[in-house]
Amino acid sequence: MTTDSTLAATADAKLAISGDNKLTKEQQLALINVNLAEVLNPEIIEKVIDEGRAPRIYWGTATTGRPHCGYLVPAIKIAQLLAAGCHVIVLLADIHAVLDNLKSTVELVGYRAKYYERTITALLKAVGVPTDKLEFVLGSSYQKSPDYIMDVYKLATLVSEHDAKKAGAEVVKQSDNAPLSGLLYPILQVLDEEYLKVDAQFGGVDQRKLFAAAKDWLPRLGYKERAHIMNPMVPGLQGSKMSSSDPDSKIDLLDAPEVVTKKIRKAEAAPKVTEGNGLISFIEYVLLPAAQLLGKEGFRVDRSRDNLEDLVYTDIAKIKADYESDVLTPQLIKPAISAAINELLAPIQTAFQASPEWQEIADKAYPPEVKVKKEKKVKNKGTRYPGGGAPAKTQEAAAREEATPEPATENA
Amino acid sequence: MTTDSTLAATADAKLAISGDNKLTKEQQLALINVNLAEVLNPEIIEKVIDEGRAPRIYWGTATTGRPHCGYLVPAIKIAQLLAAGCHVIVLLADIHAVLDNLKSTVELVGYRAKYYERTITALLKAVGVPTDKLEFVLGSSYQKSPDYIMDVYKLATLVSEHDAKKAGAEVVKQSDNAPLSGLLYPILQVLDEEYLKVDAQFGGVDQRKLFAAAKDWLPRLGYKERAHIMNPMVPGLQGSKMSSSDPDSKIDLLDAPEVVTKKIRKAEAAPKVTEGNGLISFIEYVLLPAAQLLGKEGFRVDRSRDNLEDLVYTDIAKIKADYESDVLTPQLIKPAISAAINELLAPIQTAFQASPEWQEIADKAYPPEVKVKKEKKVKNKGTRYPGGGAPAKTQEAAAREEATPEPATENA
Repeated sequence: MTTDSTLAATADAKLAISGDNKLTKEQQLALINVNLAEVLNPEIIEKVIDEGRAPRIYWGTATTGRPHCGYLVPAIKIAQLLAAGCHVIVLLADIHAVLDNLKSTVELVGYRAKYYERTITALLKAVGVPTDKLEFVLGSSYQKSPDYIMDVYKLATLVSEHDAKKAGAEVVKQSDNAPLSGLLYPILQVLDEEYLKVDAQFGGVDQRKLFAAAKDWLPRLGYKERAHIMNPMVPGLQGSKMSSSDPDSKIDLLDAPEVVTKKIRKAEAAPKVTEGNGLISFIEYVLLPAAQLLGKEGFRVDRSRDNLEDLVYTDIAKIKADYESDVLTPQLIKPAISAAINELLAPIQTAFQASPEWQEIADKAYPPEVKVKKEKKVKNKGTRYPGGGAPAKTQEAAAREEATPEPATENA
Repeated sequence: MTTDSTLAATADAKLAISGDNKLTKEQQLALINVNLAEVLNPEIIEKVIDEGRAPRIYWGTATTGRPHCGYLVPAIKIAQLLAAGCHVIVLLADIHAVLDNLKSTVELVGYRAKYYERTITALLKAVGVPTDKLEFVLGSSYQKSPDYIMDVYKLATLVSEHDAKKAGAEVVKQSDNAPLSGLLYPILQVLDEEYLKVDAQFGGVDQRKLFAAAKDWLPRLGYKERAHIMNPMVPGLQGSKMSSSDPDSKIDLLDAPEVVTKKIRKAEAAPKVTEGNGLISFIEYVLLPAAQLLGKEGFRVDRSRDNLEDLVYTDIAKIKADYESDVLTPQLIKPAISAAINELLAPIQTAFQASPEWQEIADKAYPPEVKVKKEKKVKNKGTRYPGGGAPAKTQEAAAREEATPEPATENA
């Protein structure tokens, strides 16, 4: 899973998409696996490909706050899955969203689900991948059905309190006074795999314990075990201090170019340090793969200010090396990142401006007064679970969660 | 709630039933409250009566093993409620029964629910109370509905793990390795009050913490608080040693008279000791109230063996005094109890013999091989909860549970 293989894989995908060629199994697997932290039971996905089917892979997100740039991390993986010919199901967890804030109406959450669907679709189109195998499913369309709830009751009978707690340890806030729902959510998320009829679930590596539980629990109900693919935990784009203290620092997908530039300018970035550097990670997990999916030459750094030629990177290792040796300074890299983000967001914003319907959805989904309130709450998110976020266990884990770009979903 | 008031109340009821007279509010309340250990929010029931409505009161039972004589304890209270003009809803918790033994089919549990309905109805008719306001509701008829399950999710969000554990402390087996369902059941039972649209719930005093939780939790969802009426915990009819070690010692409602006599003969009964004496308690909570509901002269003890006149009791205090002074010996009281039980069961058995349909239900509900298996499991029951029973907490509590007549329900 080096960047070289990323490049090769995405180049293959580009070829396949443009020329309508069929990828080989190896090319498909390379695209599926690129940049992942871990895969459980890869043989399940391989077998589906061997059978000539498109692997069905699901990713879940609670439809709460406005999707921001942090969502680009899982979105790029979803784009790679689509490029690899997978059938991707985005679970819009509207019930979870209602439970997250019992004051929000079902109507409001419904508009948010529509907003998420529009935004995620536009985002994937912006990186040039086919969206014909992209499917959105509302949690409420089956999570209140008699069969599902009977399985919730049954699984709750087959799973111990201890095991439920363990499964959610990294993603559900846990204490004696935590809501009981925290123990129920792992049960729901495991059952989602069966009810969405998927071959695999995708999430952040913080979901590992839950994914291990899914492997264990589904067979207890006679259901088959699924594969699990995991993105690494990626530090926040703008640094941990800002994202937790100033909600406005988050980059909205509809932010104007000058706003993006200003927010990136204020982002934390220690010179020469790549470890835990949100800007470098954003290049690695979003900007470089996006450029590759789009068939662009790479990540371009303008040095005209210093009367030097532009640098064009296709390899994250080279970027890291140059940053560590201070060839790439924070002052150089920030405008390059702003430019690349604005380029990525431009088609999304054009589509938004062209759609009165989408604009109306946005107004209803995030009326001004609600928006302020929601964003204040957002800081503890980082998982799909209402009230989720960092477990109390370790300070390190807590810091990591807060440093994450924080899509209100299993991270990625 | 002395026996004098019992007598007066039931005499009033008898009068009311036979003469079709309307009871006064005081007469109704006396019948509702007789022999109870505790009532929470009696004013709720009083207000309903003041409004000229029949108080709707629910009692739940999981449709698992065959109902035995232990069921007569709550059944007599239900009979008193019906005599008082209440609308009584018996929740046949079939989902709980399925969860209790995931190997039992929905079909089997369906037959058991029918068997419970027939048996409980026959039992109430046997004590002469009107059954036109007796209603049976299957848990599955609403516990898988979208509204209900959304409320389960919501309440799980509003209730802490700690509070759920506390609510079930006396009735759900609790340990780290206990199934998660144990924490879910209190949520379900609390919501049942709202979905059955009742004014009050009836159960054993072991339900007290759960009832207190219901008072607290329902208003969090905007639902109204209900009253709760509680029977005391009654020691097992045949003594603790027998009921836990020998399942066959339980008296089935369809046991032949000579079988009943034999089982009672083998029952534990220390002379002169009334405290914790299951035989004396059975007279107090079943045989004496049943005689009173039927307008009989009282509880008769045949002493022809000693050439003495029969003793006829209408007052439990007098029975206890005579037992403590050994006027009433175990040898005298056992045949008297057997005779009274057989008299009570006779009309039930006659109805069963006259109904090929009921007999077929019995065969399908308890096929021989299943019966043996179930009865072996029954010893840890004592609550409506699958896997419930005595909490690990105290030996004393465990002993009490095992000493209980053990209807597979919240005791009573």
